[in-house]
Amino acid sequence: MIQLPATLQKLIDSFKALPGIGSKTAERLAYHVSESHESYNKEFAESLLNIREKLNICNTCFFYVEEKSSCSCCQNNRDQTKICVVQRPKDVIAIDKAGFTGLYHVLGGVLSPLDQIGPDDLNINELIIRVDDEVKEIILAMDTSLEGDATSICLAQRLEEINKDLTISKLARGIPIGGQFEYIDEITLMRALDERRVV
Amino acid sequence: MIQLPATLQKLIDSFKALPGIGSKTAERLAYHVSESHESYNKEFAESLLNIREKLNICNTCFFYVEEKSSCSCCQNNRDQTKICVVQRPKDVIAIDKAGFTGLYHVLGGVLSPLDQIGPDDLNINELIIRVDDEVKEIILAMDTSLEGDATSICLAQRLEEINKDLTISKLARGIPIGGQFEYIDEITLMRALDERRVV
Repeated sequence: MIQLPATLQKLIDSFKALPGIGSKTAERLAYHVSESHESYNKEFAESLLNIREKLNICNTCFFYVEEKSSCSCCQNNRDQTKICVVQRPKDVIAIDKAGFTGLYHVLGGVLSPLDQIGPDDLNINELIIRVDDEVKEIILAMDTSLEGDATSICLAQRLEEINKDLTISKLARGIPIGGQFEYIDEITLMRALDERRVV
Repeated sequence: MIQLPATLQKLIDSFKALPGIGSKTAERLAYHVSESHESYNKEFAESLLNIREKLNICNTCFFYVEEKSSCSCCQNNRDQTKICVVQRPKDVIAIDKAGFTGLYHVLGGVLSPLDQIGPDDLNINELIIRVDDEVKEIILAMDTSLEGDATSICLAQRLEEINKDLTISKLARGIPIGGQFEYIDEITLMRALDERRVV
């Protein structure tokens, strides 16, 4: 049986370890890279080596921050009265693209007793500390899962305890733009009915 | 607008430059890598840097060969009487998995006047030189494209000129295993009819 050279096989294995990349795709990517320009490979390799070293987490909002630079989420020109709470750093980018101008707080996950993730494993206490008199509204933007909903409820309770005047909201659930009724699941449709609005 | 840190953005760009990887997938892969084990990232980066340095091409069959080691395609224990001619190095692995035990010759492409690829751009002369008295059969295994067929015809003519006793064959064309008639294109079906065999 003919073996691929070890260098190529190692590269294929590295690609195969990525999520959603199967054997065939890993091979195709490795063959492509083996014929790519050397400067591309060098830059790619440098990014891979730098990513864990240079990429830090902001101590306030827990979004990504580059080594020795200030967090782009915590700048003074953003609306300091609203904080949007999300699960993962990448959720910040998605919500920012939608036009939200306030502050963010990355929880780092959701409560999940089965995975042994409790309140102390998330950045919940750090959020409680952040909420000062200037903050008027907390927007909860967790995933629409059982764990996401449970985390929202737990957070809402904790936040109400410290400040009764705080508005606590969550993202609207309903039919997505372009969604066709026949393809929408029952629970989404039920929610859209429950939360219907007068036009 | 919130910007991703430059290190992360660079990594996303590197992934996005790969074939078949779009923006969303590139982001997902970069986020995954940013949370991966450091040893994985290091190994991945090393493979990327090594691939062009350590990966050579065999001077006989033009398959990949690791620096300072012998070609696994040209070993003495393989059937020296048959040479299978393929377009790309990766085709060798595919045909080898199917159980072919002879030798290989990688052409490095097919004739394509539109792309200005002529006989001198491919490893055709190197194949002609390889064909000695020991070789009894040449199996042409090009892609089933217009260019692939033209290359097969050209190769067959050149090979006949040098040795009239040489058997020149090409892979059978027909219905693939598991193929259902309604999904098979007309040309494949026509070929399967033309090349039908008595049972």
